[in-house]
Amino acid sequence: MSFAALPTDLSPRPSAATIQALVAGLDPVLGDRITTAAGIREQHGHDESWHHPAAPDAVCFPHSTEEVSAVVRACATHRVPVIPYGVGTSIEGQVIADRGGLCVDLSQMNTVIEVRPEDMDVTVQPGVTRTQLNTHLRATGLFFSVDPGADASMGGMASTRASGTNTVRYGTIRENVLSMTVVMPDGRIVETGTRARKSAAGYDLTHLMIGAEGTLGIITELNVKLHGLPEAISSATVAFDDVAGAIDAVIASIQYGIPMARIELMDTLAMRAVNAFSRLDYAEKPTLFLEFHGTHAGVKEQAESMAELCQEFGGSDFAWATKEEDRQTLWQARHDAAYAAKALRPGMEFLATDICVPISKLAECIEATQHDVTESGLIAPLLGHVGDGNFHLVVAVDRHSEQELDTLAAFNQRLIERALAVGGTCTGEHGIGTGKRAYMEAEHGEGWAVMRAIKTALDPLGIMNPGKLV
Amino acid sequence: MSFAALPTDLSPRPSAATIQALVAGLDPVLGDRITTAAGIREQHGHDESWHHPAAPDAVCFPHSTEEVSAVVRACATHRVPVIPYGVGTSIEGQVIADRGGLCVDLSQMNTVIEVRPEDMDVTVQPGVTRTQLNTHLRATGLFFSVDPGADASMGGMASTRASGTNTVRYGTIRENVLSMTVVMPDGRIVETGTRARKSAAGYDLTHLMIGAEGTLGIITELNVKLHGLPEAISSATVAFDDVAGAIDAVIASIQYGIPMARIELMDTLAMRAVNAFSRLDYAEKPTLFLEFHGTHAGVKEQAESMAELCQEFGGSDFAWATKEEDRQTLWQARHDAAYAAKALRPGMEFLATDICVPISKLAECIEATQHDVTESGLIAPLLGHVGDGNFHLVVAVDRHSEQELDTLAAFNQRLIERALAVGGTCTGEHGIGTGKRAYMEAEHGEGWAVMRAIKTALDPLGIMNPGKLV
Repeated sequence: MSFAALPTDLSPRPSAATIQALVAGLDPVLGDRITTAAGIREQHGHDESWHHPAAPDAVCFPHSTEEVSAVVRACATHRVPVIPYGVGTSIEGQVIADRGGLCVDLSQMNTVIEVRPEDMDVTVQPGVTRTQLNTHLRATGLFFSVDPGADASMGGMASTRASGTNTVRYGTIRENVLSMTVVMPDGRIVETGTRARKSAAGYDLTHLMIGAEGTLGIITELNVKLHGLPEAISSATVAFDDVAGAIDAVIASIQYGIPMARIELMDTLAMRAVNAFSRLDYAEKPTLFLEFHGTHAGVKEQAESMAELCQEFGGSDFAWATKEEDRQTLWQARHDAAYAAKALRPGMEFLATDICVPISKLAECIEATQHDVTESGLIAPLLGHVGDGNFHLVVAVDRHSEQELDTLAAFNQRLIERALAVGGTCTGEHGIGTGKRAYMEAEHGEGWAVMRAIKTALDPLGIMNPGKLV
Repeated sequence: MSFAALPTDLSPRPSAATIQALVAGLDPVLGDRITTAAGIREQHGHDESWHHPAAPDAVCFPHSTEEVSAVVRACATHRVPVIPYGVGTSIEGQVIADRGGLCVDLSQMNTVIEVRPEDMDVTVQPGVTRTQLNTHLRATGLFFSVDPGADASMGGMASTRASGTNTVRYGTIRENVLSMTVVMPDGRIVETGTRARKSAAGYDLTHLMIGAEGTLGIITELNVKLHGLPEAISSATVAFDDVAGAIDAVIASIQYGIPMARIELMDTLAMRAVNAFSRLDYAEKPTLFLEFHGTHAGVKEQAESMAELCQEFGGSDFAWATKEEDRQTLWQARHDAAYAAKALRPGMEFLATDICVPISKLAECIEATQHDVTESGLIAPLLGHVGDGNFHLVVAVDRHSEQELDTLAAFNQRLIERALAVGGTCTGEHGIGTGKRAYMEAEHGEGWAVMRAIKTALDPLGIMNPGKLV
């Protein structure tokens, strides 16, 4: 077993002459916004993961849906792969151009087109990042909830079906996109739906495009839901003697109906890493990071109920953060956890695992995984969106060491097999890219053939982000 | 313009000999659970709408996914249309066999397979109805939230992307299905996903199948989310002088973040109908029906905030129902509203319109619609899931009168055009069936071609519920 085990049936890289013809043909549309400069190509050949980089043959920077349409039509004519690119924060190789082609960098399509406070929605271009959007919304009392950690672009988050720390309350990007404009593999421009909050009008093209990783088209505009900033916010950490106690407390809280906004878990090693990295002094035990949103009275009631439940399941060292700056410190520590984990072994690349399982299976799954980590001699702190049943291990890897890659691949395979065996998925929020294609058949069986039939029907030339997902 | 204006490119009805061969071939699998008896065929030839009935050539009653697979394979071999049937409560002709074929009645696949309180989910067969499921769950403290009024089947609700009165809080069926087992048009059995709460693993087959109205396959098992019964529930009605005031109060409440479980509107005519039908004495004014779920303190706080907001926007005649029996009376009146509307013109068939628009456009859309109702000489009480921007007019029609059908078709077309013009959809929750195919091109443009490409890829023989949706 190695990571690149899956054979692909892709066409060869386009020739230099083909790329030259493509670039020349797009010159009237894009002018100097299409380039084959080596530096720019290299910048676009990697994401934030351990995956081996591969530069595209050219990079372009369209400004409108119509320009994207012209670009895709030209690529279809020349049979050149099209790799959509947001801000490059993916971590399963989604933007790596391992078959060459034209990278379509959407970062200059970064206009917040219209905020509609009454409808609590907003229309954005795909290059808008989540912090840009939330900064833009500051005066409205509204916010965009999806928060995958990285300052990802809206198009990128939709393409990888991203989520993050407050999914347990506000949903993933899947629940927060109303509709999108998509340029199809033949250049046609399609609206996937309307701004209505619900619709029963035909196949759900919006959800088909969310998570498609650019293999069915390029997202060029999004209508997304916004949420009202809560009247009150309160955060807390609480330590447990073991992971099982923490998860039992989470299960009880969900059954009890406490509408928490965030329920995050870090294991002992992750807490140790965070203390070292951020110079903090948290108890070095499995710890839940909690956040409560609501009215002042509601938040107080939620927090008290949760404190009682945590005590019942062995929680201790309850630390409250109601002041804005204390909350910032607390969540900064949580958000820096991945960097803290990386600091345990500087200079390496990193792989983040991403299984998601039914919550009743989470404790046993984590326990078996931690045993496997020890057996495998890995250093792998654990960060979990446990309210969703999703957790990550952040594992350092020297990508030039075949042996390390093999050990890690075997470990990841066992981890994913454990997830699938209990009704879970190989990826809760990072996507498939090139990194998890090898697990698609095991997870989906005949469903994978259905996905390939859809891909073939909508992208018969196979030009859209080839080698990814399907 | 008439309702059946859209041309279809369907194959002719199967011959008697073909049906005979099909039935004979399935005898070893189904025995007396496949029949061509006229009475049973006629029972299965209509739904609850005004649409002209058309009986299938045969009806079968499978008991398992494997039997459904055998049935669909046989139909593929003989090129016989397959019409999935739950309990027949659809209202856009989704189950009408206007091309003949084999009706697959799933009502005997009605087992609640497994309830998992820790995961707050349940596995059911498609013939389980929503009241059957909630009765089954009674001892668990959990409930299934989707409530379209009719006691629809789970498979049927998923197939038409149903929702209902508490969507504003708990979501439509789209947000409540985790994954499904689907028999594809060639008989293959596909799991559309896992029980994980979220996944980024490939195309979203679950959401592709939800709302597909049986045109891409037959749903034979569902994993759906459950919710905890709230500690406290309180209901209220509040009357307004005009619809605009009621909707402004709703918009303010959503912006304010009051997490109401139900926000329903009935107009003056609907209230008059309800008073007459249920012998009640509500004020005959535009009225909101509200429900609050939460802790005792939370419900009290929500209700007080909402009462203040309603007063601000001209609400009066605030009537509270905190006791179980009073709440029952209140919601029974709301649920009976469609029957009350029908009682205004007994003996007729009924058409229920179903547009859904961004909430900022709802008041103007309702106002224009009520003007049009008057101009058209229709009797059309209005019932709205206004928290979602969705409302129905329940209009009596004599389906044997070409003139009435033409008037109504023209009215419905203007209604839908108004919805599309403000970014809405022709159907919030009833689906397309045969009744709204004529509006698909106007609503989806190129997107409709994409839907047809998917249909062709997955059902190349065109046997799955032909003439519906695509």
